Amino acid sequence: MAIEKFDAVDLIHTKRDKGALGTEQINWLVDAYTRGYVGDEQMAAMTMAIFLNGMGRQEIRDLTLAMIASGERMNFDSLSKPTTDKHSTGGVGDKITLPLAPLVASFGVAVPQLSGRGLGHTGGTLDKLESIPGWRADLSNEEFFAQLEDVGSVICAAGAGLAPADKKLYALRDITGTVEAIPLIASSIMSKKIAEGTAALVLDVKFGSGAFLKDPARSRELAETMVALGKDAGVATVALLTNMNVPLGLTIGNANEVRESVEVLAGGGPADVVELTVALAREMLALAGQPDADVEAALKDGRAMDTWRAMISAQGGDPDAALPVAREQHVVTADRDGILVQQEALPFGVAAWRLGAGRARKQDPVQHAAGIDLHAKPGDTVTKGQPLFTLSADEPERFERALESLEGAYEVAEPGTPFEVQPLIADRIS
Amino acid sequence: MAIEKFDAVDLIHTKRDKGALGTEQINWLVDAYTRGYVGDEQMAAMTMAIFLNGMGRQEIRDLTLAMIASGERMNFDSLSKPTTDKHSTGGVGDKITLPLAPLVASFGVAVPQLSGRGLGHTGGTLDKLESIPGWRADLSNEEFFAQLEDVGSVICAAGAGLAPADKKLYALRDITGTVEAIPLIASSIMSKKIAEGTAALVLDVKFGSGAFLKDPARSRELAETMVALGKDAGVATVALLTNMNVPLGLTIGNANEVRESVEVLAGGGPADVVELTVALAREMLALAGQPDADVEAALKDGRAMDTWRAMISAQGGDPDAALPVAREQHVVTADRDGILVQQEALPFGVAAWRLGAGRARKQDPVQHAAGIDLHAKPGDTVTKGQPLFTLSADEPERFERALESLEGAYEVAEPGTPFEVQPLIADRIS
Repeated sequence: MAIEKFDAVDLIHTKRDKGALGTEQINWLVDAYTRGYVGDEQMAAMTMAIFLNGMGRQEIRDLTLAMIASGERMNFDSLSKPTTDKHSTGGVGDKITLPLAPLVASFGVAVPQLSGRGLGHTGGTLDKLESIPGWRADLSNEEFFAQLEDVGSVICAAGAGLAPADKKLYALRDITGTVEAIPLIASSIMSKKIAEGTAALVLDVKFGSGAFLKDPARSRELAETMVALGKDAGVATVALLTNMNVPLGLTIGNANEVRESVEVLAGGGPADVVELTVALAREMLALAGQPDADVEAALKDGRAMDTWRAMISAQGGDPDAALPVAREQHVVTADRDGILVQQEALPFGVAAWRLGAGRARKQDPVQHAAGIDLHAKPGDTVTKGQPLFTLSADEPERFERALESLEGAYEVAEPGTPFEVQPLIADRIS
Repeated sequence: MAIEKFDAVDLIHTKRDKGALGTEQINWLVDAYTRGYVGDEQMAAMTMAIFLNGMGRQEIRDLTLAMIASGERMNFDSLSKPTTDKHSTGGVGDKITLPLAPLVASFGVAVPQLSGRGLGHTGGTLDKLESIPGWRADLSNEEFFAQLEDVGSVICAAGAGLAPADKKLYALRDITGTVEAIPLIASSIMSKKIAEGTAALVLDVKFGSGAFLKDPARSRELAETMVALGKDAGVATVALLTNMNVPLGLTIGNANEVRESVEVLAGGGPADVVELTVALAREMLALAGQPDADVEAALKDGRAMDTWRAMISAQGGDPDAALPVAREQHVVTADRDGILVQQEALPFGVAAWRLGAGRARKQDPVQHAAGIDLHAKPGDTVTKGQPLFTLSADEPERFERALESLEGAYEVAEPGTPFEVQPLIADRIS
């Protein structure tokens, strides 16, 4: 048995008593945890101590690098074009990756989007795309690189080889109540993105009701932390702070979010989805050396749509196939004339999840046709009896629990009530 | 599969975010942890959150009661005499249980002392007694009750049936860096003592260098918490706050501590050991209805010694057998004339542990003859070349590491340096 450099209890005491862990200590901790010498119960105590006592910038940097070192690193040097990547911290109705990746790729840039599945009230990009008949998320390394070269954009599942320490730690945090810690979120996201080998990265960091971190100040701190981590690792990194108090767009679910994404790629779609897609595309293209790219033109003239069709086809999907439709629908209408002044993201996300669009446990399937279609957005004038939103599910007994979670989540106020729409993009951090 | 009342992650979030857990939540948590539904990693995150965010009095009370409910309760109603018990939070050279239990029992009171083994720098009462040839710590329930009735005092190992949740939780805290939390220490000690069924309890709560909690204010808080828990459970409870900045008595080890205890039972022994033994005996006897018992007389006239001999014999030990003596000794002398102004408990405890008197892992044996004999106490005038203390070990190579830990732990200052001896008993809490 090899002599261990450090003792896990000593390191826990250090963080528990508000001290800072050194580079060698963090390297040992992550390595010893990955190989099982440091136990889950010890790491759980450590992550709670990190949650409550925080980490300094150097510690977060060390943690990120140690998680990268736990696995493989990808390398895009063999590609004939620059790479640029995007990551969102997740929100309700956040389908932006779907129109964004082919839009950016239509400018001759490689967009490798290693994505995840949803857990809880925020949806997963792969779940959404899997509502397209034939489409598959698992690509071999060869398929992945060939598609990046030929089509430009790939949205697929991450392999197990990248940052395995992060995978193990994330699963632990999920069951031990330590998910929402900035040092742990930042190092988790950035270890995967840096290991992925992208040259440029644009972060969409959400705040508000439907976000991971609701407080804008904490979201800003997360964004600043991640931008610094990216730059330190030689990745050109920019973050947008965006509002997640209301759902993004008019759809929450899987198939309906694909439908809305295709509308955007066809030059239409809801204003907020278009605004965020365009803003993120500009940032990604600027980092890839095209600061003056006419992004709106690529949506209007069909170039982005052509890349979308090529991307879906390359992964076995039929871009012309009919998307699944739910067996049952339930329409909620306005009970008075007035102005829609509230539509809170979190309860709408929970309702869609309860309708079957999300999963409670990792191994559960999602119901691709389940979800919510919104017919009005905050600030809209509505009349009594007008549909506000439609719930869709395969099993009608799901409506009751979904409606329960929507109690108090939306409100029609009397006509003339002043209402100010909050800006979608609150700030840019670079 | 039964539906669970609560979700562990929700409860962790509550404590993490500085909320209070309710009675039903704590009952569920302790029960679900005992049966393995709540995992070690979840309980580790919870205990770190408790360590850093604390618990209110009601939560500590609920935790204590839930740990009692996890196992059996003992009952002394069948005995013909009252019971009174003592617990020390542990210190360096703390052999007080050895003379105290037979001394109190000599007044016709039952003293059931369920004791532990040492881990780290504080010794274990059972380890000390096991240096007496033939003596055994494991008694059947029948032997235990018969000895309480016939002899009055029993010092033995606790059965596995009392507060199993505490045993599981204590082992977890030991490896996850959450030992020194007042709510967890208080509930751990008091759940065992209340489950034990004693009618009265005297607590010796240490503070200072060699104590678990070094800060007197935190020791006071622990003492107050435990006294309140005892009273709430119907146990007459009193605590003494005692100084553990210097070792107790002149011996640190196992066999040498037995030797010193026998000196006290013979009417002699170091003043501090006698003082604390007499003070604790008075408290225990007062709680058992004998506030005017002449404790010193029982030490002088041999009654306490008779009970000691009966107690040792009843558990298979030979009170007249020679105690083991170490193969090697190393004497440290004063390097100048002057006054001994420092003798710090913790490093002396660590040194004795390194000499072989304690164990690093639960399964290790202890060396009964290893330890330290002190020849002077702080405040004593010493002359150059005079022995200050003697190290004893079976293996001479242990001296070096023991001496390392003693560097800076003792000091002889110039003659005439003013020195004030700190009172041994700082306060009484009832």
